[in-house]
Amino acid sequence: MSVKARAIYTFQSENKEEINIQENEEVLIFDENSVDGWFQGENSRGQRGLFPASYVEIIRTRSNSNVTDDCSISPAGSLGNDSSSSSYIHGTPNSTNAHLQQSYSYDDDDYDDWDDWDDRSTVVEEIDHHTSHTTRGPGANGHAHQSHVTNSSNPNVHYRSRPPMERQDSISSSRKSGSMVGRNLNRFSSFVRSGVEAFVLGDVPMMAKIAESYTIEMGPVGPRWKDNPNPFICSIEDPTKQTKFKGIKTYISYRVTPTHTGRPVYRRYKHFDWLYNRLLNKFTVISVPHLPEKQATGRFEEDFIEKRKRRLVLWMNHMTSHPVLSQYEGFEHFLMCADDKQWKLGKRRAEKDEMVGAHFMLTLQIPNEHQDLQDVEERVDTFKSFAKKMDDSVLQLTHVASELVRKHLGGFRREFQRLGNAFQSVSHSFTLDPPHSSEALNNAISHTGRTYENIGEMFAEQPKYDLFQMLDKLSLYQGLLANFPDIIHLQKGAFAKVKESQRMSDEGKMDQNEADGIRKRCRTVGFALQAEMSHFHQRREVDFKDMMQAYLREQIAFYQRVTQQLERTLRMYETL
Amino acid sequence: MSVKARAIYTFQSENKEEINIQENEEVLIFDENSVDGWFQGENSRGQRGLFPASYVEIIRTRSNSNVTDDCSISPAGSLGNDSSSSSYIHGTPNSTNAHLQQSYSYDDDDYDDWDDWDDRSTVVEEIDHHTSHTTRGPGANGHAHQSHVTNSSNPNVHYRSRPPMERQDSISSSRKSGSMVGRNLNRFSSFVRSGVEAFVLGDVPMMAKIAESYTIEMGPVGPRWKDNPNPFICSIEDPTKQTKFKGIKTYISYRVTPTHTGRPVYRRYKHFDWLYNRLLNKFTVISVPHLPEKQATGRFEEDFIEKRKRRLVLWMNHMTSHPVLSQYEGFEHFLMCADDKQWKLGKRRAEKDEMVGAHFMLTLQIPNEHQDLQDVEERVDTFKSFAKKMDDSVLQLTHVASELVRKHLGGFRREFQRLGNAFQSVSHSFTLDPPHSSEALNNAISHTGRTYENIGEMFAEQPKYDLFQMLDKLSLYQGLLANFPDIIHLQKGAFAKVKESQRMSDEGKMDQNEADGIRKRCRTVGFALQAEMSHFHQRREVDFKDMMQAYLREQIAFYQRVTQQLERTLRMYETL
Repeated sequence: MSVKARAIYTFQSENKEEINIQENEEVLIFDENSVDGWFQGENSRGQRGLFPASYVEIIRTRSNSNVTDDCSISPAGSLGNDSSSSSYIHGTPNSTNAHLQQSYSYDDDDYDDWDDWDDRSTVVEEIDHHTSHTTRGPGANGHAHQSHVTNSSNPNVHYRSRPPMERQDSISSSRKSGSMVGRNLNRFSSFVRSGVEAFVLGDVPMMAKIAESYTIEMGPVGPRWKDNPNPFICSIEDPTKQTKFKGIKTYISYRVTPTHTGRPVYRRYKHFDWLYNRLLNKFTVISVPHLPEKQATGRFEEDFIEKRKRRLVLWMNHMTSHPVLSQYEGFEHFLMCADDKQWKLGKRRAEKDEMVGAHFMLTLQIPNEHQDLQDVEERVDTFKSFAKKMDDSVLQLTHVASELVRKHLGGFRREFQRLGNAFQSVSHSFTLDPPHSSEALNNAISHTGRTYENIGEMFAEQPKYDLFQMLDKLSLYQGLLANFPDIIHLQKGAFAKVKESQRMSDEGKMDQNEADGIRKRCRTVGFALQAEMSHFHQRREVDFKDMMQAYLREQIAFYQRVTQQLERTLRMYETL
Repeated sequence: MSVKARAIYTFQSENKEEINIQENEEVLIFDENSVDGWFQGENSRGQRGLFPASYVEIIRTRSNSNVTDDCSISPAGSLGNDSSSSSYIHGTPNSTNAHLQQSYSYDDDDYDDWDDWDDRSTVVEEIDHHTSHTTRGPGANGHAHQSHVTNSSNPNVHYRSRPPMERQDSISSSRKSGSMVGRNLNRFSSFVRSGVEAFVLGDVPMMAKIAESYTIEMGPVGPRWKDNPNPFICSIEDPTKQTKFKGIKTYISYRVTPTHTGRPVYRRYKHFDWLYNRLLNKFTVISVPHLPEKQATGRFEEDFIEKRKRRLVLWMNHMTSHPVLSQYEGFEHFLMCADDKQWKLGKRRAEKDEMVGAHFMLTLQIPNEHQDLQDVEERVDTFKSFAKKMDDSVLQLTHVASELVRKHLGGFRREFQRLGNAFQSVSHSFTLDPPHSSEALNNAISHTGRTYENIGEMFAEQPKYDLFQMLDKLSLYQGLLANFPDIIHLQKGAFAKVKESQRMSDEGKMDQNEADGIRKRCRTVGFALQAEMSHFHQRREVDFKDMMQAYLREQIAFYQRVTQQLERTLRMYETL
């Protein structure tokens, strides 16, 4: 059924199947169900084609919607959700995240379609994150992370302050941008509010039977995750263009082959994104690797596909390396399910998982060793300083390497090609006075010119073999490091609770048993954080060693190739 | 004796021994005899020190000068010349260049001083060149090179339109600058007016006895200079700082050792410049290599000294390679005389040489082979096109190579050093969480950082080993090529005279004998030009082969060194 909508942003088409829409323009949408975040419709000039769902708002009237009167325009992304979504947008939520999440997931599931899976579930997550700013979870005291409550909770500011095409990126455009509005901060903020503090304070009831269990053990340099008893790795290969909408829209499918089954499954980026959002939702205290960014336009440009594939491979390597993440049932489902119907069931099961957030903490088995909380605090502070410095240096290296790529493609290539051209000009001029012209010398100089043109091209090609790989790994680490401030904040919050409860107990305002319980649960948080720190270091060492070696090997090969070209060229002069 | 002078330009001191003077400021000069173009004196603020002689004009009064009333201010450079110099400046000369030259040389010689040789002789040359614009030499018809008569002949324009510090450069600041006022053009213009055309037209009388003789012979691809029967080469080494004026002024002395004597002589740039001016004065139809440019300030900066030495070496190589130039008596004097008194005698003899300009043409012995003048014309036209293209491509390569030097010192160094810094930052951050820190990895990464910093420095150093040498040679060739348009113009003028005289003879307006004489002398010009073209090509082939080989060898060595550094660095990771 066609519905009317109003453009809330101006959109300029960038591909022939897309149409322009102007801000405030009234447009017609042929099908309310967006596909990959795109609507098919018609603008006021009668042009038909695609435009981003998030750029328009459906115009709701009593006849085509069951929403309440005070919300006659709702963001397109929340189509199909009940009126509670609107009320959350305006900052007056009254239920917990988990509840919200589940109810949305049910709705979402009704529309689920293996072959034609739209972006709504992502949008639901986003609403979740945004509304959580103003949610006071059960038992949360709400004094932590107040600084994270930014203008998104201001009812006068439309929560979709930037075009959602950008906002949907799994890694927000820049965590250095100074904006506090972003998925990560929100996510962790919500963890603090409705999750970990609740857990520490004992507000999360122990459940009757917990199928999952993750063990932390003492290693030589402190707590660490117990290895996955069935380790595996997983390849991601062969990104292949697929079409739908009778070819009007295309997407990329990847062949994903885990070693423990050896059977490939085919996954799209959105499947990764679904898994990523499950991980974010479930795993407190674990640094979930960020997915490589989405790209709104030019998605099928070859270089971009290649880059996304390389970065998904690194993402997958971190997933399979992680003793906890690699054992997650939802991940197993993602890696193994090849059947449409089974997929839906597994997906629904993952979305109904109760052991998420605060409850996930209940699945952790910690060692009996005593750890002085003060020592843990110091360990965490040291790691925090380290992580900050590493984050800075990774960012510095990223900037330098990016600039170096630019120089390879631009300045270096240009300089060598100009030199090549100039040699060719000299050679050409030498041919112009034939009686006195030495063909052998002219040829040698001309060949030298071509050699330098080649060397210019080699410089331009080289980032593909070294700097790109370095940047991929740095990007993974930027994501992992970006998670730590919030994870560390959890532990800080828990530690504050211990001190507070001990003081209250000392003052007789709290039962000592209760204070001991808080201390015990805080230990769990501390062990988990240390295990995660340890895993990070272990991977860092392997990853950076590999990165540096690979870079140096490619650099050596490069300069050897340059040398060989020059040696061959020099030989032309020696026979003159 | 102190004299008053007025500053005609503002001069800013750049070294501590110099003083500032303002335009129009009245200053005192302690000694009218400038040293190296500098006066010692005192400005109106009582500061004492050096300033450029060319920036001031002596204020002449009846009491301290014998010049005529209408010329009470004369350029400082013409001190000690009689009033005729003033009248030449104002464009009403009435004697020939040769005469002028000689009378000035006598005056000049009276002031000559082996140890403290001032710049006046150079200034005299300049007056000569400038005044020659308006000189009609004997028998010259004055229709050629009219375009070269520029504003310097305008009595309203002071002939010192730019500070002479620049003008004195042996290579004018830029022959691409579009200005027609310059030494080279003037020189050739004067050759055309008072020299070669006069020779062709038979106005230069055969002299009773000519000691000099240069032979042109037929080679496999046309006329060529007969080899110097006593070939030699000459080294220029060990530029050494010398002082005079009790250390207030310094200069550089070079050890010059020709192989045929094996005895070193010590020469300053000004001695080279004197020789260069002798060559310009004497050798018609020969492309005299330009001296490396003077540098007004920072003359003793090490890089500049090194660069000038390298370029003097190339200049000298061209001189010794040239069958005619290498046999010049003045050159022999320059290379062999080590005695003060003998030097003065030889210098005066060279300056009194009558076989200069048009008369030099009388020293040429040409082959008997018949050459059709039309064929010569075509040969010359082909060479002219070639020379134009080669000039363009040499200029292009010069620009590219200069820019590449800039990139090596700037962009390339910066990029690699930034990469090195970033690696060091990463390594440093890795040390900050000691229990999880691997010293071996940190060291390897830190070493990689230093390696890239080194590579940055290697890039910055590299031009010294390759691009500078290339630029030196290109500069020599720019100078040689810049001479050819004027040399070719001589031949064109001579050829036009042949056609004109033949027409006149056909019309009975000229005796056939006279027309035949013109044709015969035109043959001499044609042979000489072809011999010079041939010599240019012969040297070009050797020089460019050497240049390209040297460049490639240094480039190969450079990339090999980079590779070795990286290989050593990589090995640090392999033992981890």
